[in-house]
Amino acid sequence: MSIIPLGTHDAPTIGVRDIGSFHTGGRLVTLKGMPARSRVSTPNGAVHPVDPNGEIMAGQMYVQYVRLVQPRSRHPLLLWHGGGMCGTNWETTPDGRPGWQMFFLRAGFDVWVSDAVERGRASWAPSPAVYEGEPFFRTGKEAWEETFRFGPPGSWNASAALRRAHAGSRFPSAHMDDFMNQFVPRWACNDERTQAAYDSLVALQDPSAIVVSHSQGGQFGLRSASRAPERVAAVVSLEPSGAPDPQMDDPSLLRGVPHLFVWGDHLAEHSFWVESLPRVRRWHEALLAAGVDSTWLDLPSQGIHGNSHALMADDNSDAIAAMVLSWLDERGLRTR
Amino acid sequence: MSIIPLGTHDAPTIGVRDIGSFHTGGRLVTLKGMPARSRVSTPNGAVHPVDPNGEIMAGQMYVQYVRLVQPRSRHPLLLWHGGGMCGTNWETTPDGRPGWQMFFLRAGFDVWVSDAVERGRASWAPSPAVYEGEPFFRTGKEAWEETFRFGPPGSWNASAALRRAHAGSRFPSAHMDDFMNQFVPRWACNDERTQAAYDSLVALQDPSAIVVSHSQGGQFGLRSASRAPERVAAVVSLEPSGAPDPQMDDPSLLRGVPHLFVWGDHLAEHSFWVESLPRVRRWHEALLAAGVDSTWLDLPSQGIHGNSHALMADDNSDAIAAMVLSWLDERGLRTR
Repeated sequence: MSIIPLGTHDAPTIGVRDIGSFHTGGRLVTLKGMPARSRVSTPNGAVHPVDPNGEIMAGQMYVQYVRLVQPRSRHPLLLWHGGGMCGTNWETTPDGRPGWQMFFLRAGFDVWVSDAVERGRASWAPSPAVYEGEPFFRTGKEAWEETFRFGPPGSWNASAALRRAHAGSRFPSAHMDDFMNQFVPRWACNDERTQAAYDSLVALQDPSAIVVSHSQGGQFGLRSASRAPERVAAVVSLEPSGAPDPQMDDPSLLRGVPHLFVWGDHLAEHSFWVESLPRVRRWHEALLAAGVDSTWLDLPSQGIHGNSHALMADDNSDAIAAMVLSWLDERGLRTR
Repeated sequence: MSIIPLGTHDAPTIGVRDIGSFHTGGRLVTLKGMPARSRVSTPNGAVHPVDPNGEIMAGQMYVQYVRLVQPRSRHPLLLWHGGGMCGTNWETTPDGRPGWQMFFLRAGFDVWVSDAVERGRASWAPSPAVYEGEPFFRTGKEAWEETFRFGPPGSWNASAALRRAHAGSRFPSAHMDDFMNQFVPRWACNDERTQAAYDSLVALQDPSAIVVSHSQGGQFGLRSASRAPERVAAVVSLEPSGAPDPQMDDPSLLRGVPHLFVWGDHLAEHSFWVESLPRVRRWHEALLAAGVDSTWLDLPSQGIHGNSHALMADDNSDAIAAMVLSWLDERGLRTR
């Protein structure tokens, strides 16, 4: 990136009370039995001994909040990212436009952006002492051809000029490398730790928050809501990769919690989504059957074509955010 | 943490033009020759194949900016963290007070908080394909007894009630676990990658920025300034763990760049600092000999006792920030 994306100069400004952060969900873990090491901690510095044994923190997640001077809603809006990603997804888009964090701040919400367990500012823990198995590093090909549906199978190329996007794709493909800057490693072992940390974040809400999640964050958000419906004012799930099983979780507990599911284009052309979507659809239908206010927003069926899995980064990200905002407004969730 | 630290309610508010982020310094790396894997990406989701080979991004650093509607200074203030840490150090203090990010925003600076290569939202890369060697996970004992000088050698205990701080310590010791939430893993192999990324951040400044660094960030800041003095308006180094070697770098290039070094208490009682400080002192003296405006602020000699290495988290963090601000004001660095 050669030009700093310093936002939109003519957009409305905001009055901010404070910006800050905290972690939630961590606990001390004691590491034992590892051999002594040594390290040089700064160029040409001294060699000093390092004992890797002792107490470390594990299981925490990170939350950064921006609180407005005069929020229009009594509900903070929590932005939960997807797998192999962290909170940066909600900040500036890969092509330098303001992201959903600024959109919802300008709309009058206090916004809390989190990094879940194992990534970003949440930190991560050693294997095998704490985590089981090795991390996965997201490749451009996997993101492009499968998870994010930027192009059809076989369309990735290491050379940016030779990558082929879906016809009419709304993802800013020329900035794929900037999007890849946001990728973080992931493990397959941390679902329970992550759910516990998210649940601890939801438990802090007084009285309740709006949870807006993406992809892997979707099932965490849906589950947190079902475990503490009194703390969740609404759940907005952008292309959740999973959902609770109606045989295991009781959708009727969510009668007071409206749900919105938002879906982009080309879902039937990518096997990950062919396999993942029916599990989410089943939960939506169980919510409806239980009398929950649940909306299934399929963008192509509304005439909005070309959206990728990165709905908050696509070139119509503000228009999609505005649709979410309208849905919240229709339910009176932007009032104090 | 059972109470959300939502800042100070009676502090001045700020007008914000935008909040956003970008990465700088990354490049594509191609991974080859690794066996296929598989993963379940969401609880009860499908098993799907994962090819670990292909292009990933490596070497990038993360920068989050908060831009004011009416900044008082033409110089953004860049906050660079120390080793095994990330940008969270500059946000809320472990005991829930506003950190230096908010202090300098309220003082009228645009503030950019970064996560350097290998940590936080900068992401990190696999070993041995990209990084050499295994990561280090910071223990409470190492931080408490050595690097951060919260207590004397032998004073750490896994039980918070049994930890013994230095008499008169200004670190909020009761919140050590909250401080440990901010620790992130580190490697010993990334000095050059990190310096290159910081240099790329400094190269983006127009015309110049104020670099405020901590600990390991110190040498990176001092070196970035010596490589691009026209892009750096001042360098403030909180207890830098290293500094350039006057035999290798030319201090006379920095005649237009004022330097401030800030030091806490108990430095002579901890071996890491006994070994590290003279290298920094040597650079300060070389700067002075070359005619550079360089200030060595030893807090105990000013009657300010009990500060730890975590100067931005100690209970007088605002007072130390105010001393830095006065030093900047004396040099006319808060004018447009």
